[in-house]
Amino acid sequence: MPPGSIVYTGQPKEGKTGITLFSFDDKIAEVKESDSLQELIAHKKSEAVNWFNFDSLHDINLVIEAGQQFNIHNLTLEDIVHVGHPPKLEEYDNYLFLTMKMLKPGTGDDEGIYNIEHISFIVGKDIILSFQEYKGDPFDGVRERILSGKSKARGRGPDYLLFLLVDAIVDQYLLTIEWVERSISELELEVFENPREEVVGKIIEHKKVLSALRKVIYPVRDALKDITNDDSAFINDEYYNYFNDVFDHIKNMVDHLDNQREMLTSLMEFYMSQISNQMNKVMQTLTIIATIFIPLTFVAGIYGMNFQNMPELNWKWGYPVILIAMLILGIGMYIYMRRKRWF
Amino acid sequence: MPPGSIVYTGQPKEGKTGITLFSFDDKIAEVKESDSLQELIAHKKSEAVNWFNFDSLHDINLVIEAGQQFNIHNLTLEDIVHVGHPPKLEEYDNYLFLTMKMLKPGTGDDEGIYNIEHISFIVGKDIILSFQEYKGDPFDGVRERILSGKSKARGRGPDYLLFLLVDAIVDQYLLTIEWVERSISELELEVFENPREEVVGKIIEHKKVLSALRKVIYPVRDALKDITNDDSAFINDEYYNYFNDVFDHIKNMVDHLDNQREMLTSLMEFYMSQISNQMNKVMQTLTIIATIFIPLTFVAGIYGMNFQNMPELNWKWGYPVILIAMLILGIGMYIYMRRKRWF
Amino acid sequence: MPPGSIVYTGQPKEGKTGITLFSFDDKIAEVKESDSLQELIAHKKSEAVNWFNFDSLHDINLVIEAGQQFNIHNLTLEDIVHVGHPPKLEEYDNYLFLTMKMLKPGTGDDEGIYNIEHISFIVGKDIILSFQEYKGDPFDGVRERILSGKSKARGRGPDYLLFLLVDAIVDQYLLTIEWVERSISELELEVFENPREEVVGKIIEHKKVLSALRKVIYPVRDALKDITNDDSAFINDEYYNYFNDVFDHIKNMVDHLDNQREMLTSLMEFYMSQISNQMNKVMQTLTIIATIFIPLTFVAGIYGMNFQNMPELNWKWGYPVILIAMLILGIGMYIYMRRKRWF
Amino acid sequence: MPPGSIVYTGQPKEGKTGITLFSFDDKIAEVKESDSLQELIAHKKSEAVNWFNFDSLHDINLVIEAGQQFNIHNLTLEDIVHVGHPPKLEEYDNYLFLTMKMLKPGTGDDEGIYNIEHISFIVGKDIILSFQEYKGDPFDGVRERILSGKSKARGRGPDYLLFLLVDAIVDQYLLTIEWVERSISELELEVFENPREEVVGKIIEHKKVLSALRKVIYPVRDALKDITNDDSAFINDEYYNYFNDVFDHIKNMVDHLDNQREMLTSLMEFYMSQISNQMNKVMQTLTIIATIFIPLTFVAGIYGMNFQNMPELNWKWGYPVILIAMLILGIGMYIYMRRKRWF
Amino acid sequence: MPPGSIVYTGQPKEGKTGITLFSFDDKIAEVKESDSLQELIAHKKSEAVNWFNFDSLHDINLVIEAGQQFNIHNLTLEDIVHVGHPPKLEEYDNYLFLTMKMLKPGTGDDEGIYNIEHISFIVGKDIILSFQEYKGDPFDGVRERILSGKSKARGRGPDYLLFLLVDAIVDQYLLTIEWVERSISELELEVFENPREEVVGKIIEHKKVLSALRKVIYPVRDALKDITNDDSAFINDEYYNYFNDVFDHIKNMVDHLDNQREMLTSLMEFYMSQISNQMNKVMQTLTIIATIFIPLTFVAGIYGMNFQNMPELNWKWGYPVILIAMLILGIGMYIYMRRKRWF
Repeated sequence: MPPGSIVYTGQPKEGKTGITLFSFDDKIAEVKESDSLQELIAHKKSEAVNWFNFDSLHDINLVIEAGQQFNIHNLTLEDIVHVGHPPKLEEYDNYLFLTMKMLKPGTGDDEGIYNIEHISFIVGKDIILSFQEYKGDPFDGVRERILSGKSKARGRGPDYLLFLLVDAIVDQYLLTIEWVERSISELELEVFENPREEVVGKIIEHKKVLSALRKVIYPVRDALKDITNDDSAFINDEYYNYFNDVFDHIKNMVDHLDNQREMLTSLMEFYMSQISNQMNKVMQTLTIIATIFIPLTFVAGIYGMNFQNMPELNWKWGYPVILIAMLILGIGMYIYMRRKRWF
Repeated sequence: MPPGSIVYTGQPKEGKTGITLFSFDDKIAEVKESDSLQELIAHKKSEAVNWFNFDSLHDINLVIEAGQQFNIHNLTLEDIVHVGHPPKLEEYDNYLFLTMKMLKPGTGDDEGIYNIEHISFIVGKDIILSFQEYKGDPFDGVRERILSGKSKARGRGPDYLLFLLVDAIVDQYLLTIEWVERSISELELEVFENPREEVVGKIIEHKKVLSALRKVIYPVRDALKDITNDDSAFINDEYYNYFNDVFDHIKNMVDHLDNQREMLTSLMEFYMSQISNQMNKVMQTLTIIATIFIPLTFVAGIYGMNFQNMPELNWKWGYPVILIAMLILGIGMYIYMRRKRWF
Repeated sequence: MPPGSIVYTGQPKEGKTGITLFSFDDKIAEVKESDSLQELIAHKKSEAVNWFNFDSLHDINLVIEAGQQFNIHNLTLEDIVHVGHPPKLEEYDNYLFLTMKMLKPGTGDDEGIYNIEHISFIVGKDIILSFQEYKGDPFDGVRERILSGKSKARGRGPDYLLFLLVDAIVDQYLLTIEWVERSISELELEVFENPREEVVGKIIEHKKVLSALRKVIYPVRDALKDITNDDSAFINDEYYNYFNDVFDHIKNMVDHLDNQREMLTSLMEFYMSQISNQMNKVMQTLTIIATIFIPLTFVAGIYGMNFQNMPELNWKWGYPVILIAMLILGIGMYIYMRRKRWF
Repeated sequence: MPPGSIVYTGQPKEGKTGITLFSFDDKIAEVKESDSLQELIAHKKSEAVNWFNFDSLHDINLVIEAGQQFNIHNLTLEDIVHVGHPPKLEEYDNYLFLTMKMLKPGTGDDEGIYNIEHISFIVGKDIILSFQEYKGDPFDGVRERILSGKSKARGRGPDYLLFLLVDAIVDQYLLTIEWVERSISELELEVFENPREEVVGKIIEHKKVLSALRKVIYPVRDALKDITNDDSAFINDEYYNYFNDVFDHIKNMVDHLDNQREMLTSLMEFYMSQISNQMNKVMQTLTIIATIFIPLTFVAGIYGMNFQNMPELNWKWGYPVILIAMLILGIGMYIYMRRKRWF
Repeated sequence: MPPGSIVYTGQPKEGKTGITLFSFDDKIAEVKESDSLQELIAHKKSEAVNWFNFDSLHDINLVIEAGQQFNIHNLTLEDIVHVGHPPKLEEYDNYLFLTMKMLKPGTGDDEGIYNIEHISFIVGKDIILSFQEYKGDPFDGVRERILSGKSKARGRGPDYLLFLLVDAIVDQYLLTIEWVERSISELELEVFENPREEVVGKIIEHKKVLSALRKVIYPVRDALKDITNDDSAFINDEYYNYFNDVFDHIKNMVDHLDNQREMLTSLMEFYMSQISNQMNKVMQTLTIIATIFIPLTFVAGIYGMNFQNMPELNWKWGYPVILIAMLILGIGMYIYMRRKRWF
């Protein structure tokens, strides 16, 4: 496969890719849907923000067509359709390219099952392209506010729209992180109150989840840092504060993930100490029982011997005396062990 | 929720927000309280430091009003009322924004229960705004000295006042850190002298506390570093030494927290080794008892067999001989184990 | 051995080194094979890219001859034939030197047995030299596309060809990494479902493999970073994006390796906890059996004593009463232990 | 407490602070002691180095007086008397401020008990002030050589004297570090030869000592680095080599501390493995004894049963046969266990 | 001891220090030995490289004489004779100072016993001084090639000679590292095949060896990096590649040491897991034996009781029935435990 090959690496899908053109400036805002890019480009407004949203990636030809229409580098197209590509930011002469992941939390029974989906943005001077892996996105609020004219995006450029979209995605991360935190809290309770064998497996599962989240979130942090550091030609300086704000959120999430990670390590330690404690207690019981009864049994064994000449056996008070002696011996050992604080 | 939405995320509260205006220069110092911002702004003195303190955050409208009056960016307002926001420093064209946390230690029975509260400062050319989550702050000393004219703040700008306020907050951190250190010292004593199962839970609890403190203190360190590094337009160069001084205190606290962290790890190790030791001792006792008596019981068992033709049973000295043999065997094993240093 | 000594440190080999000259520009593309460097140099085309590929390193004289013909520094020649040399990038006045490793995965039964092979590139203004340790490389696709004219390399310089070759090698790394990930997944399953003693050895084996891969891949990452950072005279600025792309792939691989590393640590922890659990269970059984039967055996031992005056022995219901007492005692202890949640 | 409050935080003390003025240039060198700063300042020589040494810190008024006489910033005075302040270097317009710690090793029975004492230096153009927490310092050699005219300090500035003093303090660190290293070596021997429970406590004690030393030494390293990096107005460039030299010593000490730290971790590991080994051996003995005798005791128990119809009991050779069978069984199990390498 | 005191801190030695002057340029090369520095300086050739090698350090006066003759700073002389000084590079106005360590591997029975020896170089415009702790160095090859005229050093400056000498020392490091790697491989085999108690001590020993090697090698890496970074006046730019090459070797060694370090940690883990496994097996055996025989012994104990009214005892088939019952019980428990996969 030559480099720059545009190969879709996600789940195979049927059907056409739906494209939505969203054009707006401070006066008007229009939506147009189609599956023909050609048609939508004809509706592109000059002096306005034109947002083309592609709702799937499997139609390679469409992606290539978009590449030609908007003059996008082949390497960028490759990254757009390579759904496993980690998040990154790259600036080209005529556009800024940002690829990242959406985290879509499941619903109902699947609550807590989050899906990692690939999404890419291309920001030019008056256009913004977004490529989603699957239909469904957290941008409905953004769209609504723009259409209703309430959004500040009206009258601002595609850079501000990019901020709104990224912010919506990052807000969604929070849901997943909160779910994971809740789930780890429950695990913590379980480990503290009823430490069972299964918790080790669960701890490892949660570590994997945290690891997966980190792979989604860490590079986004770096990409956002780059946006504000790199003095990009496609991001207006006055919107740096906004990207900084998202960056702060992400940094906070990263701290949360790191904290949860440490928590899991502590839980593992706690579990191991619990196992040791439990073993200790069981061993102590065994030792106490054995320490008391093994010598007593030996004494009984002595008087169970069949020697003819065992004078004690014929003593009238032999039996009660030996019983009392045994009792004293047993109680004595019990007291001794108590004193030694064995239990 | 669109970005820049000003949403109070703390505990819901009733009642009005009390605002206090503190105006002073080298000649006069006045305090005025009200719940109307309008009224206080009318009392603002030019050519003086005007400190507006808001004692709660739940009245969103008031915060928005303050934003309009003092020309504050929406993102800043969002951070002021978002009580979970981590500490940070941000410079805008017309003000410097610092948000951090207060640590209020409890009193009486609640000693050691510290509360994390959100506080934000906005420093302009002649004003300083402070937004507290709850009433009650460590600034009484600062106020008193200003009113009595003893404070060097008289005749200096809002930047020096910011230093005084931050310094008062950071001094309060120390109380919590000292309490945690004392508490860990006690835990250490407990682990060393009487290691019980509960200590693992306590160690994890303390780790969480340290982790929470770190989340409060680390970002403040970074923010203070930024103040002196960034050559801010709102901080006079001659006060850099003062902020450096607070930075030194914070750095020292961070070192303490890290040390305590390591201490907890050592305690955990120590506890685990104690458990192992205890188990070892219990096992040794069991082994000693079993090793001595199991063979003896076997011997007694032999002479308890009912074979008709067991000549020893009929020997006159059979019984005493076997008793003595058992005694020798038992003592011999005891000596052997002592020699092997088993106990 | 003086420094700059050109000594082949790989497996001794027989036979001549095959050299292939690949010359192409936007119009023509020719391949010529020979074992005489002299002859091939005569066929070198000016105004074209001339790629000399050497398929083995053992013929020191040939390497020295190449060094003289192309004016290569002795230290470079030393690194070319020192097959254990770690990957690095070095720029000289008249060429750029890149040495790295190929990972050739085995086939059939040897699947998963990857071989680390040394490969070096020298990139000049119109030539590129490549020195392989053994015949066989992942460049067939590159060659084919160039010959068929489909490749963008036609009409571009040796820097773009270098990118194509490095990209082909890095793509091959992925195969090995995927195999290792698969293998660790299987190991994970084994540890979770049937933790046997052998898994510790396997975990250590996999750690070694990851360590070996890191030694191959990490320095390549640094070398690629240098290419784009160092503003090299031999790499056209417009191809930086391409090298950046390979750098991204490598960075991703490094993340994967680090993740797998952590996974192995988790597996080790899990295994150790399993061992402890298993031990716990075995100990519990022993304790239960011993705790129930040792006291009962003692009771039986009492009534096995041969005292003449043991009235219970003569009671009519003595035997059944004692049997029932034992039963009650045994069941009682069983219930007690159940209540204490020992099993 | 307002910031810049000059509060002595050390042990309360009685008596006056002794001040010593040491003035020297290339021609003369004079010492003058007094408890009046005023008086000594009158003896200050121009065109010479004037070293004022204060032998205690509890007399706040004296410190404030010195501050006024030499124009020292309040924050500096605060750090001078705050004995818990960590080492740091700070440059002001008219002086360089260095605060650090002395480590005074104990003598006789207290060998190994080192005391951490606060010391601060203020270096101006022709003066140097030193503030000690207690009387007694490692500077006697420095004083002697200056008085005798052997020291190169004669004819050099206060910067070179600062170097001599810091060097003397750092040389003293070495004694403590060497003592700790010796002490850890002894601990190592103890752990290897006779691992007792107490060693865990000792390991943790030593970890704390290392941690305390690090808190003393690390910041000094940073302060010394700053001296040579910061191009200070108070340190002549030609003396940079000297401070570099002390920096090298400190760096070496830091390495030693880190090494000792690792050693302690290894010792802990070793101790835990020893505990496990010991437990293993004890368990093996128990298992061997129990495995041999429990089955034999069972056999004896069989023939101790009182069934009327047990033909073996009446056989003439029944008893010796069963004894021999038991012997064979016991030896067989012993051999089996040996073969399995249980002991 | 004042700073800059020239004190020999190595083993005391008798006898004179041998000095060798090696002078060469592109035409001639001469060697002259003597114990008088004066005499050799008279033979110094202008316009040539003059290498003075001192074969011991105990003659302080000679070192001081050299210092005066060649105008060497006292701090440098101090480091030359302070044999414990860690490696470093320092540039003075009239020379470059490099101090490092030689690793001399033992021979015969002492193979693997390496000795760390102090060596220092001073490089001026036309001279190079080397100070060895003991006679014997790895420079014979260098000398030979220079004398025979084969070396490229003929006609080059003292900087190239420095490279040759450092390269020879670094090549020798490799021998020690390879020996350590071999030794750790053997230890690995031992741990895997026959894990005995002693291996923990060996692992710690090897950790110490690695730690000692790191202290020798790490600072050399930094020193070599400084040579090429610092743009030294005493190193010709065209030889940077050579020093870079040595730097690469050192970096590779550092990687090897780090790898070996991790290996030792893995081995320790493996050993601990083996101990646990072994303990598990022993415990299982004990449990199996006890679980089978303790209940059986109890049954035998029942029928060994002496109650008069035990009808079973008089049944004709009582004995065989109970024997068979016991057999069934024993086999049943055995099968149960097998099913539970206890062994």
